Amino acid sequence: MQMMQGCLARNPFARMTRLLGSVQCSREAGSRPGPQQQQKQKPLTMAVVLFPGFELLDVAAPGELLGAVPDVARLFYAAQFPGPIASSCSELAGGTVGPSLVATHRLLQGGSISDAAGGQPFKPDAIFIPGGKGVRGEVSNDFLVDWMREAAHEADVVLTVCTGSWLLGVSGALDGIPATSNKNALRNGHPQKAAPNVLWQLEARWVEHELRRSGGRTTLFITSSGVSAGGDAALALIARRAGMEVARRVAHRAEWSWQEDSSVDPFARDYGL
Amino acid sequence: MQMMQGCLARNPFARMTRLLGSVQCSREAGSRPGPQQQQKQKPLTMAVVLFPGFELLDVAAPGELLGAVPDVARLFYAAQFPGPIASSCSELAGGTVGPSLVATHRLLQGGSISDAAGGQPFKPDAIFIPGGKGVRGEVSNDFLVDWMREAAHEADVVLTVCTGSWLLGVSGALDGIPATSNKNALRNGHPQKAAPNVLWQLEARWVEHELRRSGGRTTLFITSSGVSAGGDAALALIARRAGMEVARRVAHRAEWSWQEDSSVDPFARDYGL
Repeated sequence: MQMMQGCLARNPFARMTRLLGSVQCSREAGSRPGPQQQQKQKPLTMAVVLFPGFELLDVAAPGELLGAVPDVARLFYAAQFPGPIASSCSELAGGTVGPSLVATHRLLQGGSISDAAGGQPFKPDAIFIPGGKGVRGEVSNDFLVDWMREAAHEADVVLTVCTGSWLLGVSGALDGIPATSNKNALRNGHPQKAAPNVLWQLEARWVEHELRRSGGRTTLFITSSGVSAGGDAALALIARRAGMEVARRVAHRAEWSWQEDSSVDPFARDYGL
Repeated sequence: MQMMQGCLARNPFARMTRLLGSVQCSREAGSRPGPQQQQKQKPLTMAVVLFPGFELLDVAAPGELLGAVPDVARLFYAAQFPGPIASSCSELAGGTVGPSLVATHRLLQGGSISDAAGGQPFKPDAIFIPGGKGVRGEVSNDFLVDWMREAAHEADVVLTVCTGSWLLGVSGALDGIPATSNKNALRNGHPQKAAPNVLWQLEARWVEHELRRSGGRTTLFITSSGVSAGGDAALALIARRAGMEVARRVAHRAEWSWQEDSSVDPFARDYGL
Protein backbone atom coordinates (compact mmCIF):
# COMPACT_ATOMS: atom_id res chain seq x y z
CA MET A 1 0.00 0.00 0.00
CA GLN A 2 1.57 3.27 -1.08
CA MET A 3 1.27 6.06 1.45
CA MET A 4 2.03 9.75 1.37
CA GLN A 5 1.92 11.26 4.78
CA GLY A 6 0.39 14.51 5.87
CA CYS A 7 0.10 14.73 9.63
CA LEU A 8 -2.85 16.43 11.18
CA ALA A 9 -2.20 14.94 14.59
CA ARG A 10 -3.42 17.40 17.18
CA ASN A 11 -0.56 16.66 19.50
CA PRO A 12 2.40 16.62 17.15
CA PHE A 13 4.82 17.13 20.05
CA ALA A 14 3.80 14.03 21.95
CA ARG A 15 6.41 11.35 22.29
CA MET A 16 6.44 8.58 19.73
CA THR A 17 7.92 5.22 20.45
CA ARG A 18 8.86 4.73 16.84
CA LEU A 19 9.09 7.20 14.02
CA LEU A 20 9.18 5.75 10.55
CA GLY A 21 9.49 8.05 7.57
CA SER A 22 9.03 11.79 7.63
CA VAL A 23 5.89 13.27 9.09
CA GLN A 24 4.99 16.85 8.32
CA CYS A 25 2.92 18.28 11.07
CA SER A 26 0.88 21.39 11.48
CA ARG A 27 -0.61 22.12 14.87
CA GLU A 28 -2.83 24.71 13.27
CA ALA A 29 -4.21 22.38 10.67
CA GLY A 30 -5.80 20.10 13.18
CA SER A 31 -6.68 22.48 15.95
CA ARG A 32 -9.84 23.81 14.36
CA PRO A 33 -11.68 22.65 11.29
CA GLY A 34 -10.86 24.97 8.40
CA PRO A 35 -13.48 26.50 6.12
CA GLN A 36 -13.19 23.51 3.79
CA GLN A 37 -13.94 21.08 6.61
CA GLN A 38 -16.92 23.11 7.76
CA GLN A 39 -18.57 22.93 4.36
CA LYS A 40 -21.72 20.88 4.29
CA GLN A 41 -20.65 17.30 3.69
CA LYS A 42 -22.66 14.23 2.95
CA PRO A 43 -23.20 12.10 6.07
CA LEU A 44 -20.67 9.34 6.43
CA THR A 45 -21.99 5.80 6.29
CA MET A 46 -20.10 4.32 9.24
CA ALA A 47 -19.73 0.62 10.00
CA VAL A 48 -19.42 0.06 13.76
CA VAL A 49 -17.54 -3.23 13.93
CA LEU A 50 -18.78 -5.46 16.74
CA PHE A 51 -17.15 -8.69 17.91
CA PRO A 52 -17.67 -10.81 21.03
CA GLY A 53 -16.01 -9.10 23.99
CA PHE A 54 -16.00 -5.56 22.59
CA GLU A 55 -15.87 -3.06 25.45
CA LEU A 56 -19.34 -1.63 26.07
CA LEU A 57 -18.40 2.01 26.56
CA ASP A 58 -15.89 1.97 23.68
CA VAL A 59 -18.90 1.61 21.41
CA ALA A 60 -21.59 3.41 23.34
CA ALA A 61 -19.91 6.77 23.96
CA PRO A 62 -19.07 7.44 20.29
CA GLY A 63 -22.35 5.75 19.38
CA GLU A 64 -24.29 8.22 21.50
CA LEU A 65 -22.42 11.30 20.33
CA LEU A 66 -22.22 10.45 16.62
CA GLY A 67 -25.80 9.19 16.74
CA ALA A 68 -26.83 12.67 17.84
CA VAL A 69 -25.73 14.18 14.50
CA PRO A 70 -27.14 12.18 11.59
CA ASP A 71 -25.90 14.91 9.23
CA VAL A 72 -22.38 13.83 10.16
CA ALA A 73 -22.66 10.05 10.30
CA ARG A 74 -25.16 7.25 9.94
CA LEU A 75 -24.12 4.28 12.00
CA PHE A 76 -24.53 0.65 10.98
CA TYR A 77 -23.76 -1.87 13.70
CA ALA A 78 -22.06 -4.72 11.87
CA ALA A 79 -20.44 -8.05 12.74
CA GLN A 80 -19.12 -11.15 11.08
CA PHE A 81 -22.13 -12.99 12.51
CA PRO A 82 -25.03 -10.54 12.96
CA GLY A 83 -27.38 -10.71 15.94
CA PRO A 84 -26.74 -10.10 19.64
CA ILE A 85 -23.04 -9.62 20.39
CA ALA A 86 -21.99 -9.82 24.04
CA SER A 87 -20.03 -6.83 25.27
CA SER A 88 -17.43 -6.75 28.01
CA CYS A 89 -17.22 -4.52 31.07
CA SER A 90 -13.56 -4.42 32.05
CA GLU A 91 -13.47 -8.23 32.09
CA LEU A 92 -9.69 -8.34 31.87
CA ALA A 93 -9.55 -6.46 35.17
CA GLY A 94 -12.13 -8.69 36.89
CA GLY A 95 -15.32 -7.20 35.47
CA THR A 96 -18.22 -8.99 33.84
CA VAL A 97 -19.74 -9.97 30.54
CA GLY A 98 -21.81 -6.95 29.60
CA PRO A 99 -25.11 -6.61 27.81
CA SER A 100 -25.46 -7.67 24.20
CA LEU A 101 -25.75 -5.09 21.46
CA VAL A 102 -27.50 -6.17 18.29
CA ALA A 103 -25.48 -6.17 15.07
CA THR A 104 -28.00 -5.54 12.29
CA HIS A 105 -25.44 -5.74 9.49
CA ARG A 106 -22.99 -8.34 8.24
CA LEU A 107 -19.35 -7.81 7.31
CA LEU A 108 -18.72 -9.10 3.78
CA GLN A 109 -15.50 -9.98 2.04
CA GLY A 110 -13.80 -7.03 0.39
CA GLY A 111 -14.71 -4.45 3.03
CA SER A 112 -18.45 -4.22 2.31
CA ILE A 113 -21.43 -4.67 4.58
CA SER A 114 -25.08 -5.51 4.02
CA ASP A 115 -28.08 -5.78 6.27
CA ALA A 116 -28.43 -9.10 8.03
CA ALA A 117 -31.22 -10.18 5.69
CA GLY A 118 -28.79 -10.09 2.76
CA GLY A 119 -29.75 -6.74 1.25
CA GLN A 120 -27.65 -4.81 -1.26
CA PRO A 121 -24.01 -4.71 -0.14
CA PHE A 122 -22.28 -1.35 0.16
CA LYS A 123 -18.87 -0.02 1.12
CA PRO A 124 -19.03 2.19 4.20
CA ASP A 125 -17.40 5.63 4.02
CA ALA A 126 -16.14 5.20 7.55
CA ILE A 127 -15.26 2.36 9.88
CA PHE A 128 -15.19 2.38 13.66
CA ILE A 129 -13.21 -0.30 15.51
CA PRO A 130 -13.72 -0.52 19.28
CA GLY A 131 -11.42 -2.34 21.66
CA GLY A 132 -12.03 -4.71 24.51
CA LYS A 133 -11.18 -8.13 25.80
CA GLY A 134 -12.20 -9.67 22.49
CA VAL A 135 -9.29 -8.02 20.68
CA ARG A 136 -6.92 -10.68 22.00
CA GLY A 137 -8.81 -13.34 20.06
CA GLU A 138 -9.81 -11.30 17.03
CA VAL A 139 -6.20 -10.48 16.10
CA SER A 140 -6.11 -14.09 14.86
CA ASN A 141 -9.42 -13.82 12.98
CA ASP A 142 -8.19 -13.64 9.39
CA PHE A 143 -11.62 -12.74 8.04
CA LEU A 144 -11.96 -9.75 10.35
CA VAL A 145 -8.37 -8.58 9.93
CA ASP A 146 -8.67 -8.78 6.14
CA TRP A 147 -12.01 -6.94 6.27
CA MET A 148 -10.54 -4.12 8.32
CA ARG A 149 -7.52 -3.68 6.07
CA GLU A 150 -9.64 -3.58 2.92
CA ALA A 151 -12.33 -1.33 4.38
CA ALA A 152 -9.78 1.06 5.91
CA HIS A 153 -8.00 1.40 2.59
CA GLU A 154 -11.16 2.63 0.90
CA ALA A 155 -12.62 4.63 3.79
CA ASP A 156 -12.68 8.40 4.17
CA VAL A 157 -12.58 8.06 7.95
CA VAL A 158 -11.23 5.38 10.28
CA LEU A 159 -12.01 5.72 13.99
CA THR A 160 -10.64 3.42 16.65
CA VAL A 161 -11.20 3.46 20.39
CA CYS A 162 -9.02 1.88 23.08
CA THR A 163 -7.39 -1.38 21.92
CA GLY A 164 -9.27 -1.08 18.63
CA SER A 165 -6.02 0.44 17.31
CA TRP A 166 -4.13 -2.69 18.39
CA LEU A 167 -6.61 -4.82 16.41
CA LEU A 168 -6.53 -2.54 13.38
CA GLY A 169 -2.76 -2.28 13.65
CA VAL A 170 -2.42 -6.03 13.13
CA SER A 171 -4.05 -5.61 9.73
CA GLY A 172 -1.26 -3.26 8.62
CA ALA A 173 -3.71 -0.41 8.00
CA LEU A 174 -1.95 1.81 10.55
CA ASP A 175 1.61 1.14 9.36
CA GLY A 176 3.58 4.38 9.36
CA ILE A 177 0.73 6.30 10.95
CA PRO A 178 0.77 8.12 14.32
CA ALA A 179 -1.79 6.47 16.58
CA THR A 180 -2.59 5.91 20.23
CA SER A 181 -4.35 3.23 22.26
CA ASN A 182 -5.44 2.14 25.73
CA LYS A 183 -2.88 3.37 28.24
CA ASN A 184 -2.64 0.13 30.20
CA ALA A 185 -2.11 -1.85 27.00
CA LEU A 186 0.57 0.60 25.85
CA ARG A 187 2.30 0.38 29.23
CA ASN A 188 2.38 -3.38 28.83
CA GLY A 189 3.67 -3.05 25.27
CA HIS A 190 0.93 -5.10 23.64
CA PRO A 191 0.01 -2.81 20.72
CA GLN A 192 3.69 -2.04 20.07
CA LYS A 193 4.54 -5.74 19.87
CA ALA A 194 1.54 -6.68 17.72
CA ALA A 195 1.91 -3.79 15.29
CA PRO A 196 5.51 -2.51 15.43
CA ASN A 197 5.22 -0.32 12.33
CA VAL A 198 2.59 1.96 13.85
CA LEU A 199 3.95 5.28 15.15
CA TRP A 200 2.57 4.72 18.65
CA GLN A 201 2.04 7.91 20.61
CA LEU A 202 2.04 7.20 24.29
CA GLU A 203 0.74 10.56 25.47
CA ALA A 204 -2.41 11.71 23.70
CA ARG A 205 -6.11 11.64 24.53
CA TRP A 206 -6.55 10.94 20.85
CA VAL A 207 -4.58 11.33 17.61
CA GLU A 208 -5.77 12.59 14.23
CA HIS A 209 -3.84 11.87 11.09
CA GLU A 210 -4.84 12.49 7.52
CA LEU A 211 -3.24 10.07 5.10
CA ARG A 212 -2.93 11.18 1.50
CA ARG A 213 -3.19 8.22 -0.78
CA SER A 214 -2.34 7.87 -4.44
CA GLY A 215 -4.99 9.38 -6.67
CA GLY A 216 -5.56 12.34 -4.36
CA ARG A 217 -7.79 10.47 -1.95
CA THR A 218 -7.34 10.88 1.77
CA THR A 219 -8.21 8.77 4.79
CA LEU A 220 -8.57 10.49 8.13
CA PHE A 221 -7.44 8.25 10.99
CA ILE A 222 -8.62 9.13 14.48
CA THR A 223 -7.34 6.79 17.18
CA SER A 224 -8.31 7.30 20.79
CA SER A 225 -7.00 6.27 24.17
CA GLY A 226 -8.86 3.90 26.45
CA VAL A 227 -12.62 3.47 26.72
CA SER A 228 -13.99 6.90 27.72
CA ALA A 229 -11.54 8.73 25.45
CA GLY A 230 -13.64 7.50 22.54
CA GLY A 231 -16.26 10.11 23.35
CA ASP A 232 -13.73 12.92 23.10
CA ALA A 233 -12.41 11.53 19.81
CA ALA A 234 -15.92 11.21 18.37
CA LEU A 235 -16.51 14.86 19.19
CA ALA A 236 -13.29 15.73 17.37
CA LEU A 237 -14.66 13.96 14.29
CA ILE A 238 -17.92 15.88 14.61
CA ALA A 239 -15.94 19.12 14.88
CA ARG A 240 -14.04 18.29 11.69
CA ARG A 241 -17.15 17.44 9.73
CA ALA A 242 -19.61 19.99 11.11
CA GLY A 243 -17.57 22.58 13.00
CA MET A 244 -16.71 23.20 16.62
CA GLU A 245 -20.03 24.77 17.52
CA VAL A 246 -21.95 21.66 16.50
CA ALA A 247 -19.53 19.44 18.42
CA ARG A 248 -19.85 21.61 21.51
CA ARG A 249 -23.64 21.53 21.24
CA VAL A 250 -23.64 17.73 21.06
CA ALA A 251 -21.38 17.50 24.11
CA HIS A 252 -23.56 19.99 25.95
CA ARG A 253 -26.78 18.08 25.31
CA ALA A 254 -25.15 14.91 26.60
CA GLU A 255 -23.62 16.82 29.55
CA TRP A 256 -20.29 15.37 28.41
CA SER A 257 -17.31 17.35 29.71
CA TRP A 258 -15.31 17.32 26.51
CA GLN A 259 -11.54 17.49 26.78
CA GLU A 260 -11.14 19.50 23.59
CA ASP A 261 -7.35 19.45 23.57
CA SER A 262 -6.19 16.04 22.40
CA SER A 263 -2.75 16.53 23.95
CA VAL A 264 -4.10 16.73 27.51
CA ASP A 265 -3.78 13.16 28.73
CA PRO A 266 -3.47 12.78 32.50
CA PHE A 267 -3.85 9.02 32.19
CA ALA A 268 -0.58 8.74 30.27
CA ARG A 269 1.23 10.21 33.23
CA ASP A 270 -0.72 8.03 35.67
CA TYR A 271 0.42 4.96 33.77
CA GLY A 272 4.01 6.21 33.63
CA LEU A 273 3.94 6.76 29.87
CA MET B 1 -45.68 5.36 52.20
CA GLN B 2 -44.20 6.59 55.47
CA MET B 3 -40.84 8.26 55.14
CA MET B 4 -38.29 9.41 57.64
CA GLN B 5 -35.68 11.54 56.03
CA GLY B 6 -31.94 11.51 56.52
CA CYS B 7 -30.16 13.49 53.86
CA LEU B 8 -26.84 12.36 52.57
CA ALA B 9 -27.03 14.61 49.55
CA ARG B 10 -23.51 15.55 48.59
CA ASN B 11 -24.49 19.05 47.63
CA PRO B 12 -26.83 20.05 50.44
CA PHE B 13 -26.37 23.73 49.67
CA ALA B 14 -27.60 23.55 46.10
CA ARG B 15 -30.80 25.40 45.37
CA MET B 16 -34.02 23.45 45.59
CA THR B 17 -37.11 24.43 43.74
CA ARG B 18 -39.34 23.03 46.43
CA LEU B 19 -38.58 21.98 49.97
CA LEU B 20 -41.17 19.81 51.64
CA GLY B 21 -40.63 18.73 55.23
CA SER B 22 -37.41 19.00 57.12
CA VAL B 23 -34.24 17.58 55.67
CA GLN B 24 -31.23 17.11 57.88
CA CYS B 25 -28.10 17.30 55.88
CA SER B 26 -24.52 16.53 56.56
CA ARG B 27 -21.95 17.44 53.95
CA GLU B 28 -19.45 15.22 55.72
CA ALA B 29 -21.68 12.19 55.72
CA GLY B 30 -21.82 11.97 51.98
CA SER B 31 -18.47 13.32 51.01
CA ARG B 32 -16.54 10.12 51.67
CA PRO B 33 -17.82 6.67 52.49
CA GLY B 34 -17.46 6.01 56.21
CA PRO B 35 -15.93 2.88 57.69
CA GLN B 36 -19.35 1.25 57.78
CA GLN B 37 -19.86 1.82 54.07
CA GLN B 38 -16.45 0.44 53.27
CA GLN B 39 -17.15 -2.88 54.97
CA LYS B 40 -17.38 -5.82 52.62
CA GLN B 41 -20.98 -6.00 51.44
CA LYS B 42 -22.79 -8.59 49.41
CA PRO B 43 -23.03 -7.59 45.74
CA LEU B 44 -26.26 -5.83 44.87
CA THR B 45 -28.53 -7.58 42.41
CA MET B 46 -29.41 -4.61 40.20
CA ALA B 47 -32.23 -4.49 37.66
CA VAL B 48 -31.34 -2.18 34.78
CA VAL B 49 -34.76 -1.14 33.50
CA LEU B 50 -34.86 -0.88 29.70
CA PHE B 51 -37.71 0.55 27.65
CA PRO B 52 -37.95 1.58 23.99
CA GLY B 53 -36.18 4.90 23.53
CA PHE B 54 -33.91 4.70 26.58
CA GLU B 55 -30.86 6.89 26.02
CA LEU B 56 -27.88 4.72 25.03
CA LEU B 57 -25.21 6.37 27.16
CA ASP B 58 -27.52 6.69 30.18
CA VAL B 59 -27.34 2.92 30.42
CA ALA B 60 -23.90 2.19 29.01
CA ALA B 61 -21.74 4.47 31.17
CA PRO B 62 -23.04 3.14 34.50
CA GLY B 63 -23.27 -0.30 32.89
CA GLU B 64 -19.57 -0.20 32.04
CA LEU B 65 -18.42 1.13 35.40
CA LEU B 66 -20.66 -0.98 37.63
CA GLY B 67 -20.00 -3.98 35.41
CA ALA B 68 -16.31 -3.58 36.22
CA VAL B 69 -16.91 -4.37 39.90
CA PRO B 70 -19.03 -7.53 40.29
CA ASP B 71 -18.33 -7.44 44.04
CA VAL B 72 -20.43 -4.27 44.14
CA ALA B 73 -23.27 -5.07 41.75
CA ARG B 74 -24.48 -7.74 39.39
CA LEU B 75 -26.53 -6.22 36.62
CA PHE B 76 -29.64 -7.77 35.09
CA TYR B 77 -30.93 -6.00 31.99
CA ALA B 78 -34.71 -6.18 32.33
CA ALA B 79 -37.75 -4.95 30.42
CA GLN B 80 -41.49 -5.39 30.34
CA PHE B 81 -41.02 -7.26 27.08
CA PRO B 82 -37.56 -8.91 27.01
CA GLY B 83 -35.47 -9.11 23.85
CA PRO B 84 -33.81 -6.36 21.83
CA ILE B 85 -34.81 -2.88 23.03
CA ALA B 86 -34.01 0.03 20.71
CA SER B 87 -32.04 2.83 22.32
CA SER B 88 -32.08 6.49 21.44
CA CYS B 89 -29.19 8.81 20.62
CA SER B 90 -30.39 12.31 21.42
CA GLU B 91 -33.45 11.76 19.23
CA LEU B 92 -35.34 14.64 20.81
CA ALA B 93 -32.62 16.97 19.58
CA GLY B 94 -32.53 15.54 16.06
CA GLY B 95 -30.47 12.41 16.70
CA THR B 96 -31.20 8.86 15.67
CA VAL B 97 -32.60 5.57 16.85
CA GLY B 98 -29.62 3.88 18.46
CA PRO B 99 -28.54 0.27 18.62
CA SER B 100 -30.66 -2.28 20.47
CA LEU B 101 -29.55 -3.66 23.80
CA VAL B 102 -30.86 -7.07 24.75
CA ALA B 103 -33.04 -7.32 27.85
CA THR B 104 -32.48 -10.82 29.20
CA HIS B 105 -34.92 -10.44 32.10
CA ARG B 106 -38.61 -9.65 32.47
CA LEU B 107 -40.20 -7.18 34.88
CA LEU B 108 -42.89 -8.94 36.90
CA GLN B 109 -45.76 -7.51 38.90
CA GLY B 110 -44.81 -6.62 42.45
CA GLY B 111 -41.31 -5.37 41.71
CA SER B 112 -39.71 -8.73 40.87
CA ILE B 113 -37.82 -9.89 37.82
CA SER B 114 -37.06 -13.27 36.29
CA ASP B 115 -35.02 -14.41 33.34
CA ALA B 116 -36.82 -14.23 30.03
CA ALA B 117 -37.32 -18.01 29.98
CA GLY B 118 -39.51 -17.72 33.07
CA GLY B 119 -37.02 -18.81 35.72
CA GLN B 120 -37.40 -18.26 39.45
CA PRO B 121 -38.54 -14.67 40.15
CA PHE B 122 -36.52 -12.56 42.56
CA LYS B 123 -36.64 -9.05 43.98
CA PRO B 124 -33.59 -7.04 42.99
CA ASP B 125 -31.64 -5.25 45.76
CA ALA B 126 -31.18 -2.28 43.49
CA ILE B 127 -32.91 -0.71 40.52
CA PHE B 128 -31.46 1.54 37.85
CA ILE B 129 -33.77 3.73 35.78
CA PRO B 130 -32.25 5.46 32.74
CA GLY B 131 -33.80 8.37 30.90
CA GLY B 132 -34.30 9.12 27.25
CA LYS B 133 -36.89 9.97 24.70
CA GLY B 134 -38.97 6.97 25.75
CA VAL B 135 -39.67 8.54 29.16
CA ARG B 136 -42.37 10.74 27.62
CA GLY B 137 -44.40 7.67 26.72
CA GLU B 138 -43.49 5.46 29.67
CA VAL B 139 -44.85 7.94 32.24
CA SER B 140 -48.28 6.68 31.07
CA ASN B 141 -47.28 3.00 31.27
CA ASP B 142 -49.10 1.95 34.44
CA PHE B 143 -47.37 -1.42 34.56
CA LEU B 144 -43.90 0.15 34.51
CA VAL B 145 -44.78 2.96 36.89
CA ASP B 146 -46.28 0.50 39.38
CA TRP B 147 -43.26 -1.79 39.01
CA MET B 148 -40.85 1.07 39.76
CA ARG B 149 -42.77 2.25 42.82
CA GLU B 150 -42.96 -1.24 44.29
CA ALA B 151 -39.38 -2.17 43.47
CA ALA B 152 -38.01 1.16 44.76
CA HIS B 153 -39.86 0.71 48.05
CA GLU B 154 -38.10 -2.58 48.71
CA ALA B 155 -34.73 -1.73 47.23
CA ASP B 156 -31.54 -0.92 49.11
CA VAL B 157 -30.35 1.29 46.26
CA VAL B 158 -32.19 3.26 43.58
CA LEU B 159 -30.10 4.83 40.82
CA THR B 160 -31.51 7.08 38.11
CA VAL B 161 -29.76 8.80 35.23
CA CYS B 162 -30.96 11.82 33.26
CA THR B 163 -34.76 11.91 32.87
CA GLY B 164 -34.98 8.56 34.65
CA SER B 165 -35.76 10.64 37.76
CA TRP B 166 -38.68 12.25 35.91
CA LEU B 167 -40.03 8.76 35.13
CA LEU B 168 -39.43 7.45 38.65
CA GLY B 169 -40.84 10.68 40.08
CA VAL B 170 -44.18 10.00 38.42
CA SER B 171 -44.46 6.80 40.46
CA GLY B 172 -44.29 8.80 43.71
CA ALA B 173 -41.15 6.96 44.83
CA LEU B 174 -39.16 10.21 44.97
CA ASP B 175 -41.78 12.27 46.85
CA GLY B 176 -40.08 14.40 49.50
CA ILE B 177 -36.64 13.36 48.34
CA PRO B 178 -33.89 15.66 47.00
CA ALA B 179 -33.16 14.64 43.43
CA THR B 180 -31.80 16.00 40.17
CA SER B 181 -32.33 15.30 36.48
CA ASN B 182 -31.34 16.25 32.93
CA LYS B 183 -30.53 19.98 32.86
CA ASN B 184 -32.45 20.74 29.68
CA ALA B 185 -35.54 18.97 31.03
CA LEU B 186 -35.25 20.87 34.33
CA ARG B 187 -34.89 24.16 32.47
CA ASN B 188 -38.09 23.37 30.61
CA GLY B 189 -39.82 22.40 33.86
CA HIS B 190 -40.83 18.90 32.76
CA PRO B 191 -39.74 16.87 35.81
CA GLN B 192 -41.05 19.56 38.17
CA LYS B 193 -44.47 19.50 36.52
CA ALA B 194 -44.69 15.70 36.33
CA ALA B 195 -43.52 15.09 39.90
CA PRO B 196 -44.08 18.25 41.94
CA ASN B 197 -43.41 16.62 45.30
CA VAL B 198 -39.81 15.77 44.50
CA LEU B 199 -37.27 18.19 46.01
CA TRP B 200 -35.72 19.01 42.66
CA GLN B 201 -32.16 20.25 42.88
CA LEU B 202 -31.26 22.27 39.84
CA GLU B 203 -27.52 22.48 40.42
CA ALA B 204 -25.86 19.13 41.10
CA ARG B 205 -23.91 16.64 39.02
CA TRP B 206 -25.72 14.04 41.06
CA VAL B 207 -27.58 13.82 44.39
CA GLU B 208 -27.37 11.12 47.05
CA HIS B 209 -30.07 10.73 49.66
CA GLU B 210 -30.52 7.97 52.17
CA LEU B 211 -34.13 7.45 53.13
CA ARG B 212 -34.81 5.80 56.48
CA ARG B 213 -37.96 3.75 56.29
CA SER B 214 -40.06 2.25 59.03
CA GLY B 215 -38.51 -0.89 60.48
CA GLY B 216 -34.99 0.51 60.32
CA ARG B 217 -34.52 -0.20 56.61
CA THR B 218 -32.93 2.39 54.36
CA THR B 219 -33.04 3.09 50.66
CA LEU B 220 -30.18 5.02 49.11
CA PHE B 221 -31.35 7.20 46.21
CA ILE B 222 -28.73 8.40 43.75
CA THR B 223 -30.12 10.58 40.98
CA SER B 224 -27.86 11.98 38.31
CA SER B 225 -27.94 14.81 35.83
CA GLY B 226 -28.10 14.24 32.09
CA VAL B 227 -26.62 11.34 30.16
CA SER B 228 -22.87 11.39 30.88
CA ALA B 229 -23.40 12.34 34.53
CA GLY B 230 -24.58 8.78 35.07
CA GLY B 231 -21.00 7.61 34.96
CA ASP B 232 -19.99 9.95 37.76
CA ALA B 233 -22.99 8.87 39.84
CA ALA B 234 -22.23 5.18 39.30
CA LEU B 235 -18.71 5.81 40.58
CA ALA B 236 -20.21 7.47 43.66
CA LEU B 237 -22.21 4.30 44.30
CA ILE B 238 -19.06 2.20 43.89
CA ALA B 239 -17.28 4.50 46.36
CA ARG B 240 -20.06 4.03 48.90
CA ARG B 241 -20.09 0.27 48.59
CA ALA B 242 -16.40 -0.47 48.10
CA GLY B 243 -14.52 2.71 49.04
CA MET B 244 -12.99 5.59 47.15
CA GLU B 245 -9.88 3.72 46.12
CA VAL B 246 -11.88 1.07 44.29
CA ALA B 247 -14.00 3.73 42.59
CA ARG B 248 -10.91 5.63 41.49
CA ARG B 249 -9.35 2.44 40.17
CA VAL B 250 -12.46 1.68 38.10
CA ALA B 251 -12.47 5.21 36.67
CA HIS B 252 -8.76 4.96 35.94
CA ARG B 253 -9.07 1.68 34.02
CA ALA B 254 -11.85 3.20 31.91
CA GLU B 255 -9.86 6.45 31.51
CA TRP B 256 -12.96 8.20 32.79
CA SER B 257 -12.24 11.68 34.18
CA TRP B 258 -14.43 11.40 37.25
CA GLN B 259 -15.88 14.61 38.63
CA GLU B 260 -15.71 13.42 42.23
CA ASP B 261 -17.49 16.43 43.72
CA SER B 262 -21.21 16.09 43.05
CA SER B 263 -21.77 19.82 43.58
CA VAL B 264 -19.60 20.84 40.63
CA ASP B 265 -22.11 21.20 37.81
CA PRO B 266 -21.07 23.56 35.03
CA PHE B 267 -24.03 22.44 32.92
CA ALA B 268 -26.49 23.89 35.42
CA ARG B 269 -24.97 27.31 34.85
CA ASP B 270 -24.86 26.79 31.09
CA TYR B 271 -28.58 26.07 31.12
CA GLY B 272 -29.30 29.07 33.36
CA LEU B 273 -30.29 26.92 36.35
